[in-house]
Amino acid sequence: MKIKKDIIESASRIEPYVHNTPILTSKTINKMTGAELFFKCENFQKMGAFKMRGATNAILQLSDVQKRKGVVTHSSGNFAQALALAAKNLSIEAYIVMPNNAPQVKKDAVNGYGGEITECAPTLEARETTAKQIQENKGATFIHPFNDFNVVLGNASAGKELLEKQPDLDCIVVPVGGGGLVSGTALSAIAFGNNCTVIGAEPFEVDDAYRSLEAGKIVHNTTTNTIADGLKTSLGDITFNIIKNHVQEIIRVTEEEIIEAMQLIWERMKIIVEPSSATALAAILKSKQQFSGKKIGLMISGGNVDLKKLPF
Amino acid sequence: MKIKKDIIESASRIEPYVHNTPILTSKTINKMTGAELFFKCENFQKMGAFKMRGATNAILQLSDVQKRKGVVTHSSGNFAQALALAAKNLSIEAYIVMPNNAPQVKKDAVNGYGGEITECAPTLEARETTAKQIQENKGATFIHPFNDFNVVLGNASAGKELLEKQPDLDCIVVPVGGGGLVSGTALSAIAFGNNCTVIGAEPFEVDDAYRSLEAGKIVHNTTTNTIADGLKTSLGDITFNIIKNHVQEIIRVTEEEIIEAMQLIWERMKIIVEPSSATALAAILKSKQQFSGKKIGLMISGGNVDLKKLPF
Repeated sequence: MKIKKDIIESASRIEPYVHNTPILTSKTINKMTGAELFFKCENFQKMGAFKMRGATNAILQLSDVQKRKGVVTHSSGNFAQALALAAKNLSIEAYIVMPNNAPQVKKDAVNGYGGEITECAPTLEARETTAKQIQENKGATFIHPFNDFNVVLGNASAGKELLEKQPDLDCIVVPVGGGGLVSGTALSAIAFGNNCTVIGAEPFEVDDAYRSLEAGKIVHNTTTNTIADGLKTSLGDITFNIIKNHVQEIIRVTEEEIIEAMQLIWERMKIIVEPSSATALAAILKSKQQFSGKKIGLMISGGNVDLKKLPF
Repeated sequence: MKIKKDIIESASRIEPYVHNTPILTSKTINKMTGAELFFKCENFQKMGAFKMRGATNAILQLSDVQKRKGVVTHSSGNFAQALALAAKNLSIEAYIVMPNNAPQVKKDAVNGYGGEITECAPTLEARETTAKQIQENKGATFIHPFNDFNVVLGNASAGKELLEKQPDLDCIVVPVGGGGLVSGTALSAIAFGNNCTVIGAEPFEVDDAYRSLEAGKIVHNTTTNTIADGLKTSLGDITFNIIKNHVQEIIRVTEEEIIEAMQLIWERMKIIVEPSSATALAAILKSKQQFSGKKIGLMISGGNVDLKKLPF
């Protein structure tokens, strides 16, 4: 199977630069859900999120000439940090375009990983224009945070690791933002699962993926009023295509359900997870019947939260 | 060595009822301290703290007659929950005396583990009198939260597990409250260490252990104005004796240093630890020179925090 070979090659390519993160379980939460849950903890990944996998794989696929000229992306979230750190590990330049209203803590993190920040107005247009200018001026290669097949392939290594340790999962539930992790996981499930389905979890407030599947084409969010700050983005054509064909369904959850699931994970498992990550457990708690008696994987996508702004 | 045999027997006795908790590391924090740190994560222990070990061992040492009549303790903290859960696991009664001003969340936790709560006035005298009444009326055996050699021996299993995985630690740093964990760890270091010293970490605000060592006798705290709520207790004669003979020194830390270390662990390691646990890292950060270049174990004593009352 071509996809299996591609994922194996990507995983071994990025292996020196990422953690094979632990898989945790909780008897209490199993009892509450009636299912046997396996939490793939990408909050313990380098820089605190799965994005490190895709960023590293994308950079490693560049030619030597491209590598010498660096990479550029626009992001105010985890991908900015991931690309900066992945580039630093490989001794290449990373130009990060960030909106000028991005929180100082995020700018500091990118700086800390050696990324060169260019600020721009807080609009998608300004971000794209600024990134394009850097591409032209520096010859840097643009790396999209999720709508890039090499990024998706890198992300797929998380699902591969999970299924290697738990080969008989019935299903993996994955938060959906731009779709980079859920589509990578869906490819892993095809390659390494044993009839393992993949289900997306998405806040009602930014349910573009749910609505895109209904409409049969990509639709966008007009508002992004969710605590799950990693899930505000809409799908890209590459991720939408994989999701359309290989993700069984999207379960939508309310803000209250996200916060409740997040608190449950913090209190019972003693680990710090982002609100985005908690959508997976929220979806399972919401649809208990569907998951009861089954072995379910959950992608804990990251653990980067501002401790001064907790929802509890 | 008698103590080695005792610890091994206790550890195997409690093994079916406790987790062999993971040992985590952090490159970032290693870099900050100049030492190689190994965090023994008792925050992942059952009910969220090391206390489960000592409570289970103490109950298992009772005679069948004693077991039939149950156990009693007075505690408003982790030991109340630990004794309740340990007793539940062994199908015996646990009577827990709690001050009537104990937070509802703690009462709920004890209730959740099946403990039978008796409330009393919030004074040590009322707690002791109430516990004594239950001993007399029910024939229940009193189990002290730390000043009991079987409790200390049970706690020692955490140090044993740590040294089995990292046999060449130069030192283990342990938070000091009543001294149950630090004295257990000191015994483990003798039995399983290779010239491994044990150092206590204590808030300046409740530095009774530091002052007791200076005075050569147990002295008490007159105020307990610390965020490290697990460390307010004074030593008992059993723990003081072990500490006096086998703990190298006590490093004292400020409230700010505790909060800073706690935030560092939360943000960098993505795990939830109690303020009490953070004193160990605070002590290492404070005395970098002393620990630089060495392999250091840290006892992360627990992870039970009220998420609504964080110090960040």
